[in-house]
Amino acid sequence: MHDKSIRVHSDEVAKATKAALLRRGVTKEDIAEIVYEMQNPYNDGLTLEHCVHSVERVLRKREVQHAVLVGIELDELAEKKLLSAPLQQIIESDEGLFGVDETIALGSVFTYGSIAVTTFGHLDKQKIGIIKKLDTEPGLHVNTFLDDLVASIAASAASRIAHRMRDLEEEGVTFADIEPEELGPKQKPHNEI
Amino acid sequence: MHDKSIRVHSDEVAKATKAALLRRGVTKEDIAEIVYEMQNPYNDGLTLEHCVHSVERVLRKREVQHAVLVGIELDELAEKKLLSAPLQQIIESDEGLFGVDETIALGSVFTYGSIAVTTFGHLDKQKIGIIKKLDTEPGLHVNTFLDDLVASIAASAASRIAHRMRDLEEEGVTFADIEPEELGPKQKPHNEI
Amino acid sequence: MHDKSIRVHSDEVAKATKAALLRRGVTKEDIAEIVYEMQNPYNDGLTLEHCVHSVERVLRKREVQHAVLVGIELDELAEKKLLSAPLQQIIESDEGLFGVDETIALGSVFTYGSIAVTTFGHLDKQKIGIIKKLDTEPGLHVNTFLDDLVASIAASAASRIAHRMRDLEEEGVTFADIEPEELGPKQKPHNEI
Amino acid sequence: MHDKSIRVHSDEVAKATKAALLRRGVTKEDIAEIVYEMQNPYNDGLTLEHCVHSVERVLRKREVQHAVLVGIELDELAEKKLLSAPLQQIIESDEGLFGVDETIALGSVFTYGSIAVTTFGHLDKQKIGIIKKLDTEPGLHVNTFLDDLVASIAASAASRIAHRMRDLEEEGVTFADIEPEELGPKQKPHNEI
Repeated sequence: MHDKSIRVHSDEVAKATKAALLRRGVTKEDIAEIVYEMQNPYNDGLTLEHCVHSVERVLRKREVQHAVLVGIELDELAEKKLLSAPLQQIIESDEGLFGVDETIALGSVFTYGSIAVTTFGHLDKQKIGIIKKLDTEPGLHVNTFLDDLVASIAASAASRIAHRMRDLEEEGVTFADIEPEELGPKQKPHNEI
Repeated sequence: MHDKSIRVHSDEVAKATKAALLRRGVTKEDIAEIVYEMQNPYNDGLTLEHCVHSVERVLRKREVQHAVLVGIELDELAEKKLLSAPLQQIIESDEGLFGVDETIALGSVFTYGSIAVTTFGHLDKQKIGIIKKLDTEPGLHVNTFLDDLVASIAASAASRIAHRMRDLEEEGVTFADIEPEELGPKQKPHNEI
Repeated sequence: MHDKSIRVHSDEVAKATKAALLRRGVTKEDIAEIVYEMQNPYNDGLTLEHCVHSVERVLRKREVQHAVLVGIELDELAEKKLLSAPLQQIIESDEGLFGVDETIALGSVFTYGSIAVTTFGHLDKQKIGIIKKLDTEPGLHVNTFLDDLVASIAASAASRIAHRMRDLEEEGVTFADIEPEELGPKQKPHNEI
Repeated sequence: MHDKSIRVHSDEVAKATKAALLRRGVTKEDIAEIVYEMQNPYNDGLTLEHCVHSVERVLRKREVQHAVLVGIELDELAEKKLLSAPLQQIIESDEGLFGVDETIALGSVFTYGSIAVTTFGHLDKQKIGIIKKLDTEPGLHVNTFLDDLVASIAASAASRIAHRMRDLEEEGVTFADIEPEELGPKQKPHNEI
């Protein structure tokens, strides 16, 4: 049952999410590059900066922040050999039939609709950009959850752009006509849902 | 509220599912070829026949049968211009942001685990084999739902094979050692869940 | 493959969604009452009007609009006996193991996070307010999809309020301090994602 | 990338799953009682023993085992205050908007179809039997993930029984006519999918 007395403020959760990604070597620009590569062919006037702002907006969602915090925690615990057997081995070896890494990533990608889900599946197999780097990094790092989380953030940000593109088309303009900031979080950053 | 008096027998639903796929030009071999292409690199001794049986087994699941019947019904109604506006236009034009086609396909693919979901996303973008043919068929056919349904059946059958492969490895054998029929429905074909 | 030449404008889709719900006897106030009943105990100062605006906002989402249009179309076709066998009987009898009705509703509820999903499951079993009325309506109406769609819109609107409540708590205010319109769609109603 | 050299055998994963549930005070009979309470009204001749076997079968699924292992690991780490801030506080306080607990449970419940999903949502709110006990246990235990996992196993086992019931009806028999073992795992317990 929920104990309100030790509740954490949203801003703290948001800050911890960004810090966790950076600590694991992932910048929002890394993720934005994947988004740009996927959406550029379909969206006139789209710039990398638009994609960065879309990634920032995705990272404001509670559902996404919680997924990132749990996934990275498990990767880091596995890296320090602090999980119990056999979970330690399963996560450490990036067991192909594990599935909980995809499930946690899917939980947040679902909130961006079914197109985000198929894009996530595509990225999960194709592993472009930073995702490939994370998946093949030699040696000590465990990125079992991280590569799926990055794919999910990229898929969500791409889906937002595809939906926004349609609005622009209906208004008779393109991404060239709008400021990148318009795709980012609003001034007063309420958590999005 | 459910009215038991007009209940349909499982066998009739199973038969209608197979008939609907054939009527739309999709054989179980077409689907099995996609499965084989995806799983062959990872599974020693796997044959097309193993894949056909896995597809047959997937087609025994109620969740899959119902998805196929609803999706093909909507495609056929759209083809005959029998849907009301604006749904008729949305389905007829295979509107990229529609999403209900992916949602219905996802509903059945979910029952094969998160690996099936990412495989589905991959197929939905890559469109190999019969999926490509369905998506680009010129002229009169509406296959808005059908291509997603085929991707979902193929992804599910592939996921079954990946899981079965692991069992075989643990027993020290490969697909070369087992009869294709072993991957298919049991003699007395209860609906699977 | 998508044919852009017959694309439908967002406003038309939004209008058709509202019209379809009204035609089937469901007002946004009916749905808001379910939301109010569920969220009132936890949210100081919440009024029915806040809930109406939250429902309106949910109804601006493409994913939701498409689900409503497809579900109601299938209900109405079944009512007019225009579906082919055995789908006609399955939908007409509100077959308990059918599942595609829940799947389509889930597709849109997912976009509001996992709390919306569990709330949807709860409503699907408890059937409060208009949902009960739809499920037990005697005679000619087929509401196999509609009751699930209403549960999904209510669950989504309730989830939005629960998330917004947290923001308010963190700002030291309650729903009594904010205008109901704040929960509704923005002036220029871009489609939400 | 997957490292095959440290792969864990299925039997070990299955054993660890059962041990983890028992260590946290949950027996398969506890879960079976929830299943029985939900399914008894609709299924003539159903006994608690049938439900126990259905729970055992659900616990053979890899997807379920992995979810249980991850969820209980996080509960136990939180109990020992071994998670990093702010995740430690979020999980320890059973934060209502957290969502990853439901997401992980949903991942395995999905594999039993959309009816299992709505049943899960219902149990998540109603909290009957052992679920209530886990949710309100005073003092030192953290069961943030465990109550959702138990709800997901119960919902899955109940869904299996509902589907099996239909098969029995079509054969003209009831649960009174079949051995409880028939609902359990097969002699040679391959992992199910």
